Amino acid sequence: MTACYAVADWGTTSFRLWLLDRSGSVLASRRSADGLMAIGGRFAETLEAHLSAIGAGETVPVVICGMAGAKNGWQETPYLTAPCALADISRAAVKVKRRNRDIHILPGICQPDPADVMRGEETQIFGYDRDGIFCLPGTHSKWITVEEAHVTRFSTWMTGELFALLSSQSVLSGMATGVAVADDAFLAAFNAILDCPEHFTNALFGLRARPLLDQTGGGASALSGMLIGLELVGAGVSGEVTLIASGPLAELYAAALEEIGATVTRVDAEAVTQAGLFKAACDILKTGERV
Amino acid sequence: MTACYAVADWGTTSFRLWLLDRSGSVLASRRSADGLMAIGGRFAETLEAHLSAIGAGETVPVVICGMAGAKNGWQETPYLTAPCALADISRAAVKVKRRNRDIHILPGICQPDPADVMRGEETQIFGYDRDGIFCLPGTHSKWITVEEAHVTRFSTWMTGELFALLSSQSVLSGMATGVAVADDAFLAAFNAILDCPEHFTNALFGLRARPLLDQTGGGASALSGMLIGLELVGAGVSGEVTLIASGPLAELYAAALEEIGATVTRVDAEAVTQAGLFKAACDILKTGERV
Repeated sequence: MTACYAVADWGTTSFRLWLLDRSGSVLASRRSADGLMAIGGRFAETLEAHLSAIGAGETVPVVICGMAGAKNGWQETPYLTAPCALADISRAAVKVKRRNRDIHILPGICQPDPADVMRGEETQIFGYDRDGIFCLPGTHSKWITVEEAHVTRFSTWMTGELFALLSSQSVLSGMATGVAVADDAFLAAFNAILDCPEHFTNALFGLRARPLLDQTGGGASALSGMLIGLELVGAGVSGEVTLIASGPLAELYAAALEEIGATVTRVDAEAVTQAGLFKAACDILKTGERV
Repeated sequence: MTACYAVADWGTTSFRLWLLDRSGSVLASRRSADGLMAIGGRFAETLEAHLSAIGAGETVPVVICGMAGAKNGWQETPYLTAPCALADISRAAVKVKRRNRDIHILPGICQPDPADVMRGEETQIFGYDRDGIFCLPGTHSKWITVEEAHVTRFSTWMTGELFALLSSQSVLSGMATGVAVADDAFLAAFNAILDCPEHFTNALFGLRARPLLDQTGGGASALSGMLIGLELVGAGVSGEVTLIASGPLAELYAAALEEIGATVTRVDAEAVTQAGLFKAACDILKTGERV
């Protein structure tokens, strides 16, 4: 098949690229650590190098989502303001001025009150294209409500960033090593925070104190359980949740959501990113066979 | 007057030393950054250098509180276990084996359930020597309940460490610069967390989102307000609180405690540290004029 589009998810710390035919099938793909923080502003050169590496021709158009559209990115694409239609995502794309190639960057979505922003997750939601309550775990976890094909509200939780900071830079760094898993320590810490979220910073220090008193129950799993517990009690989860995630984080959130009795639909994060970018490419470039 | 004791508060990141006469009056004092993290295990040499610098004779005995008594310190002094009498602090001091000089390190206090530990704050409480509910703000803030001259329970809150990590190492580092003060942004963030402590990690990201949406109300004061709010709602403050603190942190906590209607007695942290060390020195060495 002939390459029809290249689509990319370009974030702060990662870059993912897919070469798609006109039906959205993947002809080639590429994953690298060339996020915004790594490339020092060399957007065009970085993109062309990756396109060349997967054999994308010089005229294949490109659609990008993520932080490449931020104020400090390649080309600022102003936020849509929630509530907003998912279909507006394609309409609000901004074209990057380049001589030989059509490049479009998708907008993020902002929310004035409570103040919040996203760049990238909206494209995943667009790719999945159903109403519901969505949980997208990560460095900055998102909870997104979609009603009648509109993002009506959303919230961001610093769960992943706090886990990284606390497990590597804090007094807990010696105690929270290893990989978090949904074990008894995870669930015990999770349930304790559900009961008393206001004890969070005290419970954190408990992870430090336990090994000094020869007690078990600490470690990376307990730290993860606390942070995910605080997120879930804050987000006010009940009923049905669609979990858009992949890898170990998907397992932890699925276990946590099941623990509180939520009905969980699991969706692969990469698949919906790619689907959302393809849909946007079809809308913007009017050449694909969007189904 | 003749020097009778040297007393020191030796923590992870700081070292403070006072030379006292037999009535507890300060003849000389010294403050340095020679905490445990800075001296690479050179306890005796570091102490002697500071003693020499303030003119303490070679036979002046020394009493030390703080992390010097931890497992990774100079000489481990086992924790007392709460509930415990304040008077036990002197009794449980451990003597460091040195040829020429009497050196004693005071114990910390542990609590098995919920697991918690302190080293240093107990000496401040011993110095103040009254019943009450005590708030000692810091990297790891302590709340200590003293009833009938016994520490009956206590809790530690990672407020200061989280402030340092978030304001310097996180996505908030550009937004939480400057010094936190008890201004409107502080009080607004404080009250918001009192109402919804479970929204803490979401409210944190709000500090990131606000400037992107040209909204004010973020910054170091708001971050401080959130963290102190989470501590105070978790500690369950009501009625009378004795605040043992000094400097800008004392002002922030006093404002926060007054905001929730607590009756605050303010006590200078350095004065009670010195008083507690002097009382312990009198008890241990039986030579001072403890009043």
